[in-house]
Amino acid sequence: MSSDCVFCKVINGDVAANIVFEDSLSVAFLDHRPLFPGHCLLVPKEHIETLGDLPKKLIAPLFSNVQLLSQAVEQALAAEGSFVAMNNRVSQSVPHLHVHIVPRRRKDGLKGFFWPRNKYQSDEEIEMVQKAIRSAVETLQRNPNGS
Amino acid sequence: MSSDCVFCKVINGDVAANIVFEDSLSVAFLDHRPLFPGHCLLVPKEHIETLGDLPKKLIAPLFSNVQLLSQAVEQALAAEGSFVAMNNRVSQSVPHLHVHIVPRRRKDGLKGFFWPRNKYQSDEEIEMVQKAIRSAVETLQRNPNGS
Repeated sequence: MSSDCVFCKVINGDVAANIVFEDSLSVAFLDHRPLFPGHCLLVPKEHIETLGDLPKKLIAPLFSNVQLLSQAVEQALAAEGSFVAMNNRVSQSVPHLHVHIVPRRRKDGLKGFFWPRNKYQSDEEIEMVQKAIRSAVETLQRNPNGS
Repeated sequence: MSSDCVFCKVINGDVAANIVFEDSLSVAFLDHRPLFPGHCLLVPKEHIETLGDLPKKLIAPLFSNVQLLSQAVEQALAAEGSFVAMNNRVSQSVPHLHVHIVPRRRKDGLKGFFWPRNKYQSDEEIEMVQKAIRSAVETLQRNPNGS
């Protein structure tokens, strides 16, 4: 628990929130500035900053709840699909891991600008990036705590 | 395996891709139209359409790999953070579950339009949405296959 973290305060009941789900390890509540009504945030109760910091033992229970909530928001809002996302550090407004779970509809206005896509400049760039990621994966697999 | 699914073809080697990671259950490769260089897609080898369809036994291994790749793209691209996302049905270009894992930098141009946020019209609307999601969660917990 971090004393100045607003999500820790929600978890402790010190800040009001519209809670939609809770179990022993996590809490989900309505985002008060939603992409669309029904937009939820699922957070681990432990103060964990990013996905990379999530202990292995929490991966299955947390993402089982993400799955549950993606189905729940679709059903509750009679949506056609859902969007599930995490921002790690960049665009992360609160440094306590939170999974956005958002009901989606076709023609809801999010498509288009939502995924501004680019192209690689050359095959060489693609291969360079591919090699760099493969190498980072191998390093991380040897030493999961990095560097 | 679905015979007309392009990701199944990547998994089988029938369609070329820049693979950055593979284990017994999943494959990750470079998105050829990236948000930013290093944007990867992690897919289960089994043809599973959405997060809601993912068998419970695959949640831990798949999201452990998402965690690994989020750290790997950050390190490989010397990024400041990462974006991890899934589109279920709406905005899902290929109906085979794929997790986007994207390196991010501050001032990379994605902030701002990336999260167009709204407000609830009233406290009543918030409470109605909260109740609907809580009810859907309870129904799904009683009957995980829905309806």
